[in-house]
Amino acid sequence: MCCNLFNKLPAYSRVLISEKSIKWNQSQNPPRNATKCSVLAIEDSLSFPVDKKFQFDDVIDAQQFDRDVLSAIFEVAWEMEKIEKKSPGSQLLKGYLMATLFYEPSTRTRLSFESAMKRLGGEVLTTENAREFSSAAKGETLEDIIRIVEGYSDIIVMRHFESGAAKRAAATAGIPIVNAGDGPGQHPTQALLDVYTIQREIGKLDGIRVGLVGDLANGRTVRSLANLLAKYQNVKIYFVSPDVVKMKDDIKGYLTSQGVEWEESADLMEVVSKCDVVYQTRIQKERFGERIDLYEEAQGKYIINREVLKVMQKHAVVMHPLPRLDEITADVDTDPRAAYFRQAKNGLYIRMALLKLLLVGW
Amino acid sequence: MCCNLFNKLPAYSRVLISEKSIKWNQSQNPPRNATKCSVLAIEDSLSFPVDKKFQFDDVIDAQQFDRDVLSAIFEVAWEMEKIEKKSPGSQLLKGYLMATLFYEPSTRTRLSFESAMKRLGGEVLTTENAREFSSAAKGETLEDIIRIVEGYSDIIVMRHFESGAAKRAAATAGIPIVNAGDGPGQHPTQALLDVYTIQREIGKLDGIRVGLVGDLANGRTVRSLANLLAKYQNVKIYFVSPDVVKMKDDIKGYLTSQGVEWEESADLMEVVSKCDVVYQTRIQKERFGERIDLYEEAQGKYIINREVLKVMQKHAVVMHPLPRLDEITADVDTDPRAAYFRQAKNGLYIRMALLKLLLVGW
Amino acid sequence: MCCNLFNKLPAYSRVLISEKSIKWNQSQNPPRNATKCSVLAIEDSLSFPVDKKFQFDDVIDAQQFDRDVLSAIFEVAWEMEKIEKKSPGSQLLKGYLMATLFYEPSTRTRLSFESAMKRLGGEVLTTENAREFSSAAKGETLEDIIRIVEGYSDIIVMRHFESGAAKRAAATAGIPIVNAGDGPGQHPTQALLDVYTIQREIGKLDGIRVGLVGDLANGRTVRSLANLLAKYQNVKIYFVSPDVVKMKDDIKGYLTSQGVEWEESADLMEVVSKCDVVYQTRIQKERFGERIDLYEEAQGKYIINREVLKVMQKHAVVMHPLPRLDEITADVDTDPRAAYFRQAKNGLYIRMALLKLLLVGW
Repeated sequence: MCCNLFNKLPAYSRVLISEKSIKWNQSQNPPRNATKCSVLAIEDSLSFPVDKKFQFDDVIDAQQFDRDVLSAIFEVAWEMEKIEKKSPGSQLLKGYLMATLFYEPSTRTRLSFESAMKRLGGEVLTTENAREFSSAAKGETLEDIIRIVEGYSDIIVMRHFESGAAKRAAATAGIPIVNAGDGPGQHPTQALLDVYTIQREIGKLDGIRVGLVGDLANGRTVRSLANLLAKYQNVKIYFVSPDVVKMKDDIKGYLTSQGVEWEESADLMEVVSKCDVVYQTRIQKERFGERIDLYEEAQGKYIINREVLKVMQKHAVVMHPLPRLDEITADVDTDPRAAYFRQAKNGLYIRMALLKLLLVGW
Repeated sequence: MCCNLFNKLPAYSRVLISEKSIKWNQSQNPPRNATKCSVLAIEDSLSFPVDKKFQFDDVIDAQQFDRDVLSAIFEVAWEMEKIEKKSPGSQLLKGYLMATLFYEPSTRTRLSFESAMKRLGGEVLTTENAREFSSAAKGETLEDIIRIVEGYSDIIVMRHFESGAAKRAAATAGIPIVNAGDGPGQHPTQALLDVYTIQREIGKLDGIRVGLVGDLANGRTVRSLANLLAKYQNVKIYFVSPDVVKMKDDIKGYLTSQGVEWEESADLMEVVSKCDVVYQTRIQKERFGERIDLYEEAQGKYIINREVLKVMQKHAVVMHPLPRLDEITADVDTDPRAAYFRQAKNGLYIRMALLKLLLVGW
Repeated sequence: MCCNLFNKLPAYSRVLISEKSIKWNQSQNPPRNATKCSVLAIEDSLSFPVDKKFQFDDVIDAQQFDRDVLSAIFEVAWEMEKIEKKSPGSQLLKGYLMATLFYEPSTRTRLSFESAMKRLGGEVLTTENAREFSSAAKGETLEDIIRIVEGYSDIIVMRHFESGAAKRAAATAGIPIVNAGDGPGQHPTQALLDVYTIQREIGKLDGIRVGLVGDLANGRTVRSLANLLAKYQNVKIYFVSPDVVKMKDDIKGYLTSQGVEWEESADLMEVVSKCDVVYQTRIQKERFGERIDLYEEAQGKYIINREVLKVMQKHAVVMHPLPRLDEITADVDTDPRAAYFRQAKNGLYIRMALLKLLLVGW
């Protein structure tokens, strides 16, 4: 389905990036571990030029990347997919140490990052207990903790409960920070893996039709995805959600300002029949408080099941950020258009790509 | 004591296994990571033929192995013992990634598996927090979690609180599942290490006399051990337990049906004097609820102490699955017949062997 | 500031150590993993002789080292600093496995040790959950747990809530134990990194003037530091603390008995103006129970801020064991004399040095 994926990448992306790139030996402030980068360690299979510094110090926000950088990151993710499947254990990041500093547990995200690092030969320090970094003292600042952990590691992957925490960490740290979700704020690797999955599954991003279904008011992922899709041409977005959890006006306004066509619909079947991508999300029970009745009404309203699959186009796919409860029935899983587990796997490749880019460059 | 251990292995076991084995290049569905297996990575010291696929995809239940396979696994465990002691860090499983997916903490079992993987050069992803795999959603199925974690790893070692969970995981996963205990169900690596320890310590399994002591009603280990011993010839089993925690009729019936001689006895001293193996277990306080009086009576009834050692034969051994409280007194530890810490160590070798077999074959 | 650090090391230290050392091939009880030590694995950059056994089996107590051994350990730490900064991932401890057995969480200390091990190519087994080593049985002894964990690893780093626990573990274990803090008892690697930091920052230990500030009654670190400084010549110590948390008489008596000059002062500015090292500590709120008023009075009394920096000598430094709350204001951090984050980093080098010494010797 996606064999000619990269034929569709704009031809100028590589050149553009090369111009942006700063070679390490020209940099006045080389990253602390620059001397650790060994060209010999680079896999032969990597076809893109190495030793060009990634033009970002950190990954804080999916919006920090323009579409050319996104395309280039996706090329690296695609290389990572080949490395993961074919090589007997890449040593690309051998000698590098990643700290996963999690202020709240998120096993899925943590294991994905740690697998990414280890698949590239890197090592990991883990804590899911960062909220109690010191058993002795409450009140130690995030900045102090970052200053300590950067002394132990080469890159920090951080999950925090407060919006903006990753940005604060990046302002302090002398090593790269990767935001693995900061409260209601950003979760950029999720947004990137969603867009990468669309490109891998559909083969293009310009001109696609995407149905966003479920909790559009509270879902961080659908909001980020809508924002990112605005970077592409001729995208059309359909919003399908119970009334109580409709997409908010800020996103609608942004899409309009970017010239992205969108419409709201209550007819899931009709939307599904038109879309390339149906992106289902979970209705978040915890948002309904004691109104279990409202939750149950919302939860049951738009279910992806085999009836829905019948009207879906052959080339289209169902996506979901997971965890999934009943909003996609289990009998959908065996349909080849059920892309959500491939989507989760793509998170691994995106994270491998970002770790590679931040630590050893393009 | 066990220098001629493998002389006693039936001579036909190797051939039999070879016939059972399916070469990878003949397999229609090679394991996803088949291409990662490098013959060059195999230690020279391994004398058995390599590149023969293990005839099991998963380790779910100790009963899945017949005595010939058990013997062959024990040979591999014995090789692992040599590797662990002599080599400067085997690289047999280099490039492989094991996920320890624990739904309840079991530090002992987890560290044993993780040490096994690392002693063979493999890498580990850990969670003891799988019960809250997602902080966001309760109710995600085990099957969904397995589908995600299998994307991050090459083998999953799973501990669960529900009987049958490992089997469900294995039905879903495309990579090997190792059951590290599923509730009141199976804990096959414990059962295997128990039988391996008897062979290592006594030098044989046919014809042995084993005293099972303590909580025989609730102890998963003694029930599994009794079941496994039924695979051997001329075994005699003695049950020594307080009345409230006697061995249940299902096991007794199974032993009888398999032609295994057994008897119940209240005379610990007499049983000990006859046995090759005295397998002591802990009385499980939590089974007695508020009847602390009954617990204390049961707990104090059959203690292994230096008086008991006096009647034990010179070649015999004391085993215990650990943790141990007072049912074996600390002054027994220094007696060479106290085998329980060697038994715990054998768990490492059994787990090294199984990881090796599942990932790279015989 | 410290380029000529090691010129000041007493010239006889190396020789003295060589005489103490026992070569492995002469040892009657070589460490279990002696055969794992490969001279080939030693970094070329290490200038000191290898294959001389470290004269200690364990690190339990900072006081176990005399000043010559301390100097030699500091030389190794200095080599470690060079290894960490320049090499692409040392393999000095490749094949070795460290277990971090933590009975209470201490993320900072744990990550520091784990980073140290991984920076040297070693592997790590982790538990912060050792207090519930077995979910099944409360009451398993520390000794039993040590006997099990030593079967899975080559060295155990232990954090415990009871004073003396590390010593008990060392008495049981056949592999090295490193005390990472045992309750109100010892935390020797913290004490060593404090003294190493003074040598690195000031360039000497004899003749220094050190101001200990804050909670001197309860602070384990300041008590250990005072004890260690007594090993050096012409040291002068100033105690500056609120009345409720004054340095206790045992330490004062010990200093006097060792000929170390000390005085108490309530005038922070005057002390700071005289000192080479100002060692600030946190007032421990939990010691004040319900007397929040007393805590707040004590907490606010001696703050290091930019006013204090003005009277401090140019070559002097501010140290702090961290975590830091308000007792050093954040605007001090940018002053080059703020040494506390460098001090935390030195913990990494000290721990690398000790792991190296315990596992492969000098």
